[in-house]
Amino acid sequence: MRVEIINTGTELLLGRVANSHLGFLAQSLLGLGLRVERQVTVPDGAAIAEALNEAMARAELIIVTGGLGPTSDDITRDAAAQAFGKKLIFHPEILDGITAKFASRNIAMNDLQRPQAMVPEGGVALENPNGTAPGLIVENDKTVAVLLPGPPGELRPMWENEALPWLRKKFAHRLVPVHEVTLRILGMGETRVQIVVEDEVKALGAVEVGYCARPGEVDLRLIAPDENLVRKAAALARGELGDAIYAEGVETMEEVVVRLARAARKTVATAESCTGGLVASRITNVSGSSEMFRYGWVTYANAAKMTELGVPIGLLEKQGAVSAEVAQAMAEGALKKSEADVAVAVTGIAGPTGGTPEKPVGLVYFALAARKGKTQIVERTLSPIRETFKYMASQIALDLVRRALV
Amino acid sequence: MRVEIINTGTELLLGRVANSHLGFLAQSLLGLGLRVERQVTVPDGAAIAEALNEAMARAELIIVTGGLGPTSDDITRDAAAQAFGKKLIFHPEILDGITAKFASRNIAMNDLQRPQAMVPEGGVALENPNGTAPGLIVENDKTVAVLLPGPPGELRPMWENEALPWLRKKFAHRLVPVHEVTLRILGMGETRVQIVVEDEVKALGAVEVGYCARPGEVDLRLIAPDENLVRKAAALARGELGDAIYAEGVETMEEVVVRLARAARKTVATAESCTGGLVASRITNVSGSSEMFRYGWVTYANAAKMTELGVPIGLLEKQGAVSAEVAQAMAEGALKKSEADVAVAVTGIAGPTGGTPEKPVGLVYFALAARKGKTQIVERTLSPIRETFKYMASQIALDLVRRALV
Repeated sequence: MRVEIINTGTELLLGRVANSHLGFLAQSLLGLGLRVERQVTVPDGAAIAEALNEAMARAELIIVTGGLGPTSDDITRDAAAQAFGKKLIFHPEILDGITAKFASRNIAMNDLQRPQAMVPEGGVALENPNGTAPGLIVENDKTVAVLLPGPPGELRPMWENEALPWLRKKFAHRLVPVHEVTLRILGMGETRVQIVVEDEVKALGAVEVGYCARPGEVDLRLIAPDENLVRKAAALARGELGDAIYAEGVETMEEVVVRLARAARKTVATAESCTGGLVASRITNVSGSSEMFRYGWVTYANAAKMTELGVPIGLLEKQGAVSAEVAQAMAEGALKKSEADVAVAVTGIAGPTGGTPEKPVGLVYFALAARKGKTQIVERTLSPIRETFKYMASQIALDLVRRALV
Repeated sequence: MRVEIINTGTELLLGRVANSHLGFLAQSLLGLGLRVERQVTVPDGAAIAEALNEAMARAELIIVTGGLGPTSDDITRDAAAQAFGKKLIFHPEILDGITAKFASRNIAMNDLQRPQAMVPEGGVALENPNGTAPGLIVENDKTVAVLLPGPPGELRPMWENEALPWLRKKFAHRLVPVHEVTLRILGMGETRVQIVVEDEVKALGAVEVGYCARPGEVDLRLIAPDENLVRKAAALARGELGDAIYAEGVETMEEVVVRLARAARKTVATAESCTGGLVASRITNVSGSSEMFRYGWVTYANAAKMTELGVPIGLLEKQGAVSAEVAQAMAEGALKKSEADVAVAVTGIAGPTGGTPEKPVGLVYFALAARKGKTQIVERTLSPIRETFKYMASQIALDLVRRALV
């Protein structure tokens, strides 16, 4: 069954907003055994109808995001009605629902809201508890189109609670799961991963092997219709790659760290300079992190490293803020003050300026202090691109915590 | 001149990785007066050639990302050579360059790297100082295709330093700038913005008006070929929207905050509970932030609020950690310890659990303390979705700082 996604929105094609819908929908569809074969982004306007017509010639399921709202550039509802040759019917009960929402929030309602109560003939309206525009399902004998509102906070719950159950029922007899394992690897390049695993994995049978490289890390993807085969391939890859694998599937590094710490009933503290709070923020993105994370410092200035973490002034003057010694003092200071089980510190030069010949942009020191044993120090030179640098550094810091918790 | 982008990568369609290329390239192309009319994502494999053929029937400029690397699923080079009917020619000097890169990093090179030295006949190879695969330009008399490597750290500098100058030269006589102003608005819904500005703006002439809503904020986009007209429309909108506009164009809230603080020679400190370091991390994403940001605390636990920021235990017990009083004590404690000019504090319930009937998930208190005047308190109830909640809360915290610095 061929699935395509159409994302509408001039803002996407102007580069103002990143497309977060594709990832969310694709992962969810994969759970149904459906793979997205094509995704297209078109601007608000006539191109929506064009893209719908093209997709209808190929796909059985089309998901369209955006353009259901109340403003003048929201035309997905009309385009879909036209493409499927259906009239739009006014549903007073939908308008009543929208009116009630405005009333409950004491906000004055205006007439622009009215088109949101129009549903293509024979179609289904999907409830939107988080916004005004309902989603819509339109179908003919060949194709189903699911139209979802653009804001992720509206799209996601609507997809989970309304669209998915409808699709599960509609296509119950057709869904054949695909099996997939993704191994997430830190600290190895993609060709190294390929050399270590691909021939052996392919010798097992028809397993699709894919690689996705990001700075400092690689996702290794194994896909097959046969669950056993994927399981064998994954076991083989795990044997070869060992603890370079930091996570599997959709689990993120921060989710692994929070899960391991909670299971071990250990707490983690962070002392950050160049990552500027990113390590703490990633940990606290995870629900339940308050059980294992209590204290974090962003000691961006030398004074903060001294007053908050007790880093000696002599060390800062002699070794410089970006040094193994200062990283160690930061981690040990954070461990002591927080009474945590593990503390990680990061200090480096995020750039683009501030580098010297001895200490170039991208140089970073990590320290991991724990209740027992010597503090561990790691030195790396990472990307000189600020954003990439911060992410890579946070990833390595979290990986040190992960390894300490295993 | 019609421009289309083809992003290749099964990982994008599996939802493993977000597409960051579209935004980057679209913004850069807009500076050239070029708008992306369509973007398509296809999996690694035969679909790349299909998408190229379709785009070649419509577009004069096609940008393809990904699939130039050394692993078995990298086939963009072959697909483009085929679509344009060109032979691939081996360039020994490219392979020598790759060999030298491996040698300089003391990494053993393997034969998988060799296909990266193949260039379609008559094509141009684009230098890749940040990776192994060069980019490629292939053209015929109707269409130019620019092939770029997938990793953003390779794609971006290659685009800026190699592809853009080539395109500027190639299309010098054809580029006609489009003028665009985007006003970024916090705390107003999209229909409210439309009602306040659209009729007046449209009365000025042929201005394209677009809206992009995100939780708690809206981008208002004004586009026209006439620079004066856009300027007038923007002035009109600014008059109506006033200080709800927190930024213009591509400037982010954190960039505005860092810019204003540096200009005023003021320093800012952060005291975060529910945002968990996100406010600090967003500030430190901005180059030059070390001039205005020195101290940040992530006091996730009550104990941390007490020991680090001096929040009285009685206040925590009586009012609870999520209260106006605790937010105030956090901000004032941070101001005192950091000796900053402005300190912002955030404490709330990020969910999904931890809410009560009196204090539901999404409730959050902000406090802004400054050297002079009373500490300002703001109470809000934000999205119950954790990720959205954190972002919205960080946005409001930064906006309080922005307003204090204006």
